Amino acid sequence: MQRAAPQEFTRVLSSMCTEPHPAARDAAERFLATNPGDPATYRTVARLEERAVETLGEIAGLSEPHGYVTSGGTEANIQAVRSARNRRRVEDPNVVVPESAHFSFTKAADVLGVELRRVPTDEDHRADVSAVRAAADDDTVLVVGVAGSTEFGRVDPVPELADVAHEAGAFLHVDAAWGGFYLPFTDHEWGFADAPVDSMTIDPHKCGQAAVPAGGLLFRERAGLDALAVDTPYLESTSQATLTGTRSGAGVAAAAAAMDALWPDGYRREYERAAELASWFASELRERGFAVADVELPIVAASVPESLFERLREAGWRISRTESGELRVVCMPHVTREMLVAFLADIDERRPSPP
Amino acid sequence: MQRAAPQEFTRVLSSMCTEPHPAARDAAERFLATNPGDPATYRTVARLEERAVETLGEIAGLSEPHGYVTSGGTEANIQAVRSARNRRRVEDPNVVVPESAHFSFTKAADVLGVELRRVPTDEDHRADVSAVRAAADDDTVLVVGVAGSTEFGRVDPVPELADVAHEAGAFLHVDAAWGGFYLPFTDHEWGFADAPVDSMTIDPHKCGQAAVPAGGLLFRERAGLDALAVDTPYLESTSQATLTGTRSGAGVAAAAAAMDALWPDGYRREYERAAELASWFASELRERGFAVADVELPIVAASVPESLFERLREAGWRISRTESGELRVVCMPHVTREMLVAFLADIDERRPSPP
Repeated sequence: MQRAAPQEFTRVLSSMCTEPHPAARDAAERFLATNPGDPATYRTVARLEERAVETLGEIAGLSEPHGYVTSGGTEANIQAVRSARNRRRVEDPNVVVPESAHFSFTKAADVLGVELRRVPTDEDHRADVSAVRAAADDDTVLVVGVAGSTEFGRVDPVPELADVAHEAGAFLHVDAAWGGFYLPFTDHEWGFADAPVDSMTIDPHKCGQAAVPAGGLLFRERAGLDALAVDTPYLESTSQATLTGTRSGAGVAAAAAAMDALWPDGYRREYERAAELASWFASELRERGFAVADVELPIVAASVPESLFERLREAGWRISRTESGELRVVCMPHVTREMLVAFLADIDERRPSPP
Repeated sequence: MQRAAPQEFTRVLSSMCTEPHPAARDAAERFLATNPGDPATYRTVARLEERAVETLGEIAGLSEPHGYVTSGGTEANIQAVRSARNRRRVEDPNVVVPESAHFSFTKAADVLGVELRRVPTDEDHRADVSAVRAAADDDTVLVVGVAGSTEFGRVDPVPELADVAHEAGAFLHVDAAWGGFYLPFTDHEWGFADAPVDSMTIDPHKCGQAAVPAGGLLFRERAGLDALAVDTPYLESTSQATLTGTRSGAGVAAAAAAMDALWPDGYRREYERAAELASWFASELRERGFAVADVELPIVAASVPESLFERLREAGWRISRTESGELRVVCMPHVTREMLVAFLADIDERRPSPP
């Protein structure tokens, strides 16, 4: 069977998406024509979604999860804000996020009409608990901690942020969209079992190796999900908590299949591989004289001259930069040592010659 | 190559999703691992999206469309409301919809914090223009007309609704999520060329025979789309107008492939087949003494006893009812005459015996 996947990933170092696991790809192809948004009609895929949510709960430390497979991390983050806003009916709701939070919270704020309070991170790019505390007030409906930030792969102090949130009468949401499939194999305190986390974004289509679209949203309490439900006349089911309507059976089936195949041992092996790769790549960059941020989860952020960055792009590398300008390389499953050796060779060839 | 599609469609009469066209399925499988949400990284699929939007514009009568391939009709409807709300910055925005409008507008109202004014339809289930006019005021940001309603397949008087909207200083949105791939072959006035329509939902993954997720959102003016954009640090592109972030390359590629294969002749043939099938099925039901609504687009809505409806469901048919209780059968591409012959036989076997 010819896969004929476009050769899009061979030079992609910037993406948090990756080549799906073969089991995920097969499941996606089989369920391409189903709609988990209509669970009473498409029953098989609805059962797969229940299984996917159960496994996401296991990964995140929650034995009775309430949630669903979203279109991605953006939908999950929007819905977490929406749920908190709907449950805390204050006049002028606000959400407090560290400035390392994903731009989907900016989108959520515009969509939902809530004020976004972005507070500075500490010198190591983690949420500053005292700054978050200072920003939270009676109108705060949600505090966000990031567990695996998009730019530097940092894990915020989740237990402390939960305390701050709950002291303010707000909910605590953890955005583990990218980090959630690595963190169970680390010592970080990030999940439902580590702290009184209320909701979480954790995306199978990133490090879970599912096919797009398969994000994940989990709530500790049923009421979190219920706050999102609207009535659905003329569907066989009677209410719908998702942001979208028709949804991708391919994504749901792929998520269930990937997690069946990989949780926990496959994900553990991939975490170890990626962590080692990131550590090696960071040391190679340091040896060449570039300033590299400490590696926490497998993202490498390094200061490189703008001119070099542009030349590498022109050479066909798909790379991107942090807001502060660092080159970032995300060590996703498709990123191999061979790719990074070739990338380093291109760096060596194209960097300005030493004076 | 074994397709192994689950046999989910063989008894599905209620869904507006369908088996994708073979070209769409192939494209979806090839682009499963791409993300049009990051167009500078995934360039091939980004070009396919441009082509899909161009063709959607052709179908809808708009030569320079501004829009994108959404996750489905719900996202497109939410975004149309959001765009109008963001462009008309009134204190207490409201949206006027006929009661035949899809429940995604209820979701949009909750998500976006706008008031939803649902106004009665006329006796034939179409928007009542005078009722819409009476409900619209200075705070109305959007008026919605439905071109192919979910329950009865009705087409609202779009030109008149556009006048009402514009007199109130609001925008006019047409929800042609389901009907858009049939309407070019009818005499209805529904599209951008027929009236000063501002935005439209038109979904390739319904009658366009793309794979889920592939909805469509079109704006006449660039400003409609721009009102949705948020900045995107650390993506190679710099802003994003979509509601979701990571998006399905499979859906986008499938939409482009299906429309390449079927527009216009394939869609015309399918419209003719579906219209004839619906007309025949309606007459068969009438011959059996059931009250059947006039068929406009290929949906048949008929009054059947509750007990019969339940027995048909127990027999494995995936069917649903309108809010007012009619059985509705949507004549999607996967619905064949053979299926409906079998369905009629089950009706004959299970209906209460005549007194």
